[in-house]
Amino acid sequence: MSGTKMKGVLSPVVTPFDNNLKPDAKRLINHCKWLLSNDVGLAVFGTNSEANSLSLAEKMSLLEQMVEAGIPADRMMPGTGCCALEESVTLTKRAVELGCGGTLMLPPFYYKGVSDEGLYRNFSEIIQRVGDDRLRIYLYHIPPVAQVSITLTLIERLLKEYPTIIAGAKDSSGDWSNTKAMLDEFQPEGFDVFPGSESFLLAALREGGAGCISATANVNPGPIAKLAASWQGDDADTQQEGLNATRNIFQTYVMIPALKAAVAHYGKDAEWNRLRPPLVELTDAEQKKLIDALDAAGFTMPGLAEAHA
Amino acid sequence: MSGTKMKGVLSPVVTPFDNNLKPDAKRLINHCKWLLSNDVGLAVFGTNSEANSLSLAEKMSLLEQMVEAGIPADRMMPGTGCCALEESVTLTKRAVELGCGGTLMLPPFYYKGVSDEGLYRNFSEIIQRVGDDRLRIYLYHIPPVAQVSITLTLIERLLKEYPTIIAGAKDSSGDWSNTKAMLDEFQPEGFDVFPGSESFLLAALREGGAGCISATANVNPGPIAKLAASWQGDDADTQQEGLNATRNIFQTYVMIPALKAAVAHYGKDAEWNRLRPPLVELTDAEQKKLIDALDAAGFTMPGLAEAHA
Repeated sequence: MSGTKMKGVLSPVVTPFDNNLKPDAKRLINHCKWLLSNDVGLAVFGTNSEANSLSLAEKMSLLEQMVEAGIPADRMMPGTGCCALEESVTLTKRAVELGCGGTLMLPPFYYKGVSDEGLYRNFSEIIQRVGDDRLRIYLYHIPPVAQVSITLTLIERLLKEYPTIIAGAKDSSGDWSNTKAMLDEFQPEGFDVFPGSESFLLAALREGGAGCISATANVNPGPIAKLAASWQGDDADTQQEGLNATRNIFQTYVMIPALKAAVAHYGKDAEWNRLRPPLVELTDAEQKKLIDALDAAGFTMPGLAEAHA
Repeated sequence: MSGTKMKGVLSPVVTPFDNNLKPDAKRLINHCKWLLSNDVGLAVFGTNSEANSLSLAEKMSLLEQMVEAGIPADRMMPGTGCCALEESVTLTKRAVELGCGGTLMLPPFYYKGVSDEGLYRNFSEIIQRVGDDRLRIYLYHIPPVAQVSITLTLIERLLKEYPTIIAGAKDSSGDWSNTKAMLDEFQPEGFDVFPGSESFLLAALREGGAGCISATANVNPGPIAKLAASWQGDDADTQQEGLNATRNIFQTYVMIPALKAAVAHYGKDAEWNRLRPPLVELTDAEQKKLIDALDAAGFTMPGLAEAHA
């Protein structure tokens, strides 16, 4: 992985599926290029990528196709944390070999109420088995979905043992006090904290945070990246309010189908409006309401239709 | 899959790991043979098998090795429900080809708060893609762990569309009123209900249930199978009390490491006392306390050491 650490805004890139529900690499690559053109990095295989509805083989293949298509690997932070140790190792190793800037790692999420000792062993085994100094792990804390937490105690222990490999975290707890605690305790040691929503972007940057990794960066990348680049300016709070207003519209709906509905509409490509079970698309009525609300707010996705053509 | 439906007691077979944390097929097969000799069927790749800590490749290989070793496939009900559609299809298809008596299917469990429509599509896609009339699916309802439920409404819809393929359910909710509702509504249609614990075995059998699929059948198979075979006898309630007493001892601890500690101790094979992250073994003190309590209760595992030798 590259010497420079990843910073700024990343998007858990939504994954398009063809009419047989297979991942559509071409459409995915086009969307990645559009995000990069907006200065947004690629946290592919995140929660909003429906990554846990993809098989290991599908993720391996997509990662390779993206790099072959010229997507710069140092701008990619693929999700590589699986329930099964062997799968986490295989995917993480390939990400390192391909030169990815980092990997975003979920804890194994089937068994609940597991101990920090068990989670420590999971991450430690992965690090040992990948066995590559270039590995950079961003721990993925998303208790509302994974239901298994990355505690501060766990971070402390991992960071002590693997100070360069444990590079940071994505905090999708939605709990600012937790993000703040991560920032206070670990950012001074070079541990980069990315809140899981741009609603905490300005607050995090002001406390030394590295940026954010946010679902809505799929649809609103330019304005979010702009705040990350100009957060010390006078209009930062106004920019933050604008970002919040857009996010609030999306948050009225189930997030992943709402993102896909917007990409399909503004990208003029109905093929995007397809999800893998167990997720389902928005109803026609919901889609209309979403688009009406976005249009009324003056929302646009500049260049998307051209990039997706 | 065979024409006769699966009945009686099944065990989510614990999975042994070698010192490199790889699944140990030989030890697993020995344990399966011991369970069969106690008239207990094999719900391999269940929650208590640490199945979600196994990769797809590991599960495919173990399944094939078990059948090659002469384990009767019609006594096997492997867990084949994965988060990724393609993996569920691959594993389920192989189970059908090998002649398994049924498959125990978790819903995709990463995304939370998903709709019945999304879950219906998941199971329906799997059935369509496997495309084999011999398929028999037992829906796996385990909300405390999966956090995604198999609702009565979902069962009703699946059963209507696929009346022979949807063969039954394992109910690990621990909520007898839910098990009772499944029995009342669907058992008359030939939908076989297995509670996820022998503590509900007698109650379920009296209401037309098919048996049970229980963690502790790994360690106490003979007495549990005996009740399933003689539940109409005068001593059924006394038998049930005896089963409960044993189960209560195990339930004092985290179940999976407690099962492995007992198998290691009574099977005289310390290699069994190893778990894959994120699970961890019991501490030495906990193991001693568990074994002392079991010994004090007169608990034994007849024939285990010989079967495991």
